Amino acid sequence: MSVSLRGTNMPESPIRKLKPFADKAQAAGKKIYHLNIGQPDIETPPQMFDALKNYENKIVAYGPSQGLPEYQDALIKYYAKYNISLKRDDIIVTTGGSEAIIMGLTICLDPGDEIIVPEPFYANYNGFATAASVIIKPITTRLEDDWALPSPAAFEKLIGPKTRAIMICNPNNPTGKLYSKEDLSALAQLAQKHNLFLFGDEVYREFIYTQEKHTSLMHFPEIADRVIIMDSISKRYSACGSRIGAFISKNPQIMKAALCFAQARLCPPTIDQVMAIPTVDLDDKYFASMVAEYKARRDAVLAGLSSMEGVKYKTPLGAFYIIVKLPVDNAEKFVTWLLSDFEIDGETVMLAPANGFYNTKTLGHDEIRIAFVLNVAKTKKAMNIFAQGLKKYQSMH
Amino acid sequence: MSVSLRGTNMPESPIRKLKPFADKAQAAGKKIYHLNIGQPDIETPPQMFDALKNYENKIVAYGPSQGLPEYQDALIKYYAKYNISLKRDDIIVTTGGSEAIIMGLTICLDPGDEIIVPEPFYANYNGFATAASVIIKPITTRLEDDWALPSPAAFEKLIGPKTRAIMICNPNNPTGKLYSKEDLSALAQLAQKHNLFLFGDEVYREFIYTQEKHTSLMHFPEIADRVIIMDSISKRYSACGSRIGAFISKNPQIMKAALCFAQARLCPPTIDQVMAIPTVDLDDKYFASMVAEYKARRDAVLAGLSSMEGVKYKTPLGAFYIIVKLPVDNAEKFVTWLLSDFEIDGETVMLAPANGFYNTKTLGHDEIRIAFVLNVAKTKKAMNIFAQGLKKYQSMH
Repeated sequence: MSVSLRGTNMPESPIRKLKPFADKAQAAGKKIYHLNIGQPDIETPPQMFDALKNYENKIVAYGPSQGLPEYQDALIKYYAKYNISLKRDDIIVTTGGSEAIIMGLTICLDPGDEIIVPEPFYANYNGFATAASVIIKPITTRLEDDWALPSPAAFEKLIGPKTRAIMICNPNNPTGKLYSKEDLSALAQLAQKHNLFLFGDEVYREFIYTQEKHTSLMHFPEIADRVIIMDSISKRYSACGSRIGAFISKNPQIMKAALCFAQARLCPPTIDQVMAIPTVDLDDKYFASMVAEYKARRDAVLAGLSSMEGVKYKTPLGAFYIIVKLPVDNAEKFVTWLLSDFEIDGETVMLAPANGFYNTKTLGHDEIRIAFVLNVAKTKKAMNIFAQGLKKYQSMH
Repeated sequence: MSVSLRGTNMPESPIRKLKPFADKAQAAGKKIYHLNIGQPDIETPPQMFDALKNYENKIVAYGPSQGLPEYQDALIKYYAKYNISLKRDDIIVTTGGSEAIIMGLTICLDPGDEIIVPEPFYANYNGFATAASVIIKPITTRLEDDWALPSPAAFEKLIGPKTRAIMICNPNNPTGKLYSKEDLSALAQLAQKHNLFLFGDEVYREFIYTQEKHTSLMHFPEIADRVIIMDSISKRYSACGSRIGAFISKNPQIMKAALCFAQARLCPPTIDQVMAIPTVDLDDKYFASMVAEYKARRDAVLAGLSSMEGVKYKTPLGAFYIIVKLPVDNAEKFVTWLLSDFEIDGETVMLAPANGFYNTKTLGHDEIRIAFVLNVAKTKKAMNIFAQGLKKYQSMH
C-alpha cells in the first residue's frame, strides 16, 4: 500500500535527519553541544509560567478559531510597538509559525503554483510546499554577496504565469542577513508590478545586532493587500514548544479564506495562548538583555571561526544563525563524523549540514549552519571542538 | 489581490457560521443553550490540571516531532486496553485530531485524488479536503436505514481510478451510528479488493450507549497496512482546547511520510502533551460515569423529541450527536429564527443546520444536528425551548 506522490516527496528535516547519529553518540556516553537546531537555552519568561499556574478554568475548552480575543488584543499592543497598526480582524492566531506558512501557501496558491524564495532558506519551507503541492522556485543568494537579495531583474527571470508569491524571512534563517528598507521597497515594487503576494516570515524581528531597526513588510501601506506576515512566539520568548504563532494580513479576502481554514482545524491551543498573553507587557529591557546575550554568543561563534583556517562566512546582523563554508567536499559527512568518530574529553558538537537549506540540489554541500543558541561558555567549548575536529578531519582527507 | 481557487473554496464551518446571529442574541441579553457544537461542559480531569501545576521545566522547548516519548508510551497503554497493540513507531502525536486527518489526506492522496466518505459526515472533513486539494466522494446514509453503511455494491459504484481511500467516523459524528464488526469487516474486504486506504476517525471510541463493544479498524490485522486511525483526547477527556491528537498506522511507509510531515511543523504542543500523560491512568470508572452522564443527556434529548410532532430521528448508540429531520423546509432559517426572533423567559437554543454535514448539496436542508453536551437540567430546558419554538415557527409558516 503506497503513499501518494507528495507523501513520497515529503522531505526529511535536514536539521533532524542526523538525529540517529546523535542518539548513538549519546548512548555511547558522549556529550553533544547542539548548534544544529534553533532551540534556545534561554529561560521562558516567568510571566508565562505564572499565567500557567494561575489557570483557573475547569474545562480546557475550544477557543475561537481566530484565537482568544484577549490574546489578539495583546498582539495588537505588541505590533503597535513596531509601528504596525492592526485590528482583531487582521490576526489569526496559529499553531506555531508553521501553521501560518501552511495557511498562506494553501489559501494563496493552488497545486502547481509557484512561490519564489531566496535560498538558502528555512528548510521546512520545502516540507510545507510539498504538503501544499506548490512549487518553490529558489533564487540563490551568495556568501560572496553577503547574502544580499538578488536584483529585481534576477527575480523577474523566475517570474512566470504560475508565479503567485515571493516569500522572505527577515532577519534571515539561516544566513543571519537583515534586509534593509530599500531591499524590501524593491521587493514591494516587484510584487506590485507582477501582481504577486509577499509573504514575510518575521519570527526573528527582535534579533538584531546593529543599530538598524527592523523593517516589516507591513511598513509598506501601498502593498498592504498583498502582504502576509507569518509570526511566532517560539524564539522571542523561548517558547518553541508552545506552538503559538500568527497569520497577519490586511486583505479581507485573504483573512476570510484564512478564517475558513482556521475554522476547519477548530482552534490553536488554549492554555498556550493564555500563557502568551502577558508577554506583551515584557518591557524593552527583556529584549535588550536577550539580544545582548545572543550578540555575545554570536561573537563567541565569530571568534571561534576567525581562528579556523579555510572557513568562509559573513557576520550575521540578525536572527541567530550563520552559514559557514567549510574547506571540505561534503559537510554532511564531516558533521556525521563529528558525531560518530570525534570527541574531546567525551564531548562533541552537532552542526546542521546546509545543503538541506538549498532547494537547488547542487548547492550548500560544503556549508553548515550554526545556531548560536547556547550560552557563551558552552559556545566556546563547542566552537573549540568544531575547530579541532575540522583540523583533524582535514588531516585525514 | 485574489486568493487561490482552493482559498476561495474553503468552506465556512456550518457549526460556526451562525455565530454572528448568536453574538447578536447574546448582545441583546438572551441566554443561549448551545446544542450546536461538540464542546462538552464536563470538567477536564483534575489529573490534567495537576500535571499543569506541577510543570517544572524552565523552558517550554520543542519536543520530538512524533510526540513526547512519555506520552507515546501512555498512548500505547491506553490502546492496549482496547486490544490495539502499538509500538512507538506506530504513533505520531498530532495537534488535535484535525492535524491527523490533514496528514492522512496529504500523504496518502495527491491533488485530485478521491476519498469516499459516508455522509452526513463531520463537516470539517470538507475543509481538510479543500486544503489538501483532494475530492470527497460522498456516499449517502439515510435516517430511514438507521444511518447504516451502504452496501459494498453501492461503494463500488463510486470507486474509480482516482479513488485512494475510504474514511469513516465510528461512532459517528453527526449521526450517532455505531458500526458493527460485520459492517467494518465488509469495508475491510472492500479496501483489500480495490487496494484502498481505510481511515478511521475514532475519537468517540468510549461514547457507546449499548452493550456492544467498539470495533476499531485496528482490529483487522489483514488490512493493517492500509489502516490509519485518527484520534484525539478532545472529547474523551473534555480537553478540546488542548489540541492533542494522534495519527496511528502500522504501515512503515505511511509512518515515514507522516514523520516527515510532522518534522516540517516541528512538534505538537509540549505542555498539553505533559497534561495528557496522566489520563492513561484514569480508571474504568471515569469512562463509566462519563458515559452514564452522556446517556442521561441523550435520553433527555430523546424524551424532548418524542413529544414533538413531525420530527424524525433514530436513537444514537454512540458519540454524542443526533440528526433530526424537522417538519420545516429550511432548517437553517429555523435555526436562525430561534436565535433572532424567539425566546422563552429570555432564553433560546442554538442548533446546527445539518446541510453542512452533507457533501451532496441537495441533502440535509430539513435536518439539524444536536450535540448533547449540556447537563440534563439544561438539556431539558433547551429541548423545551426547541419544541416550543418549532411549534410557533410551524404556526407561522
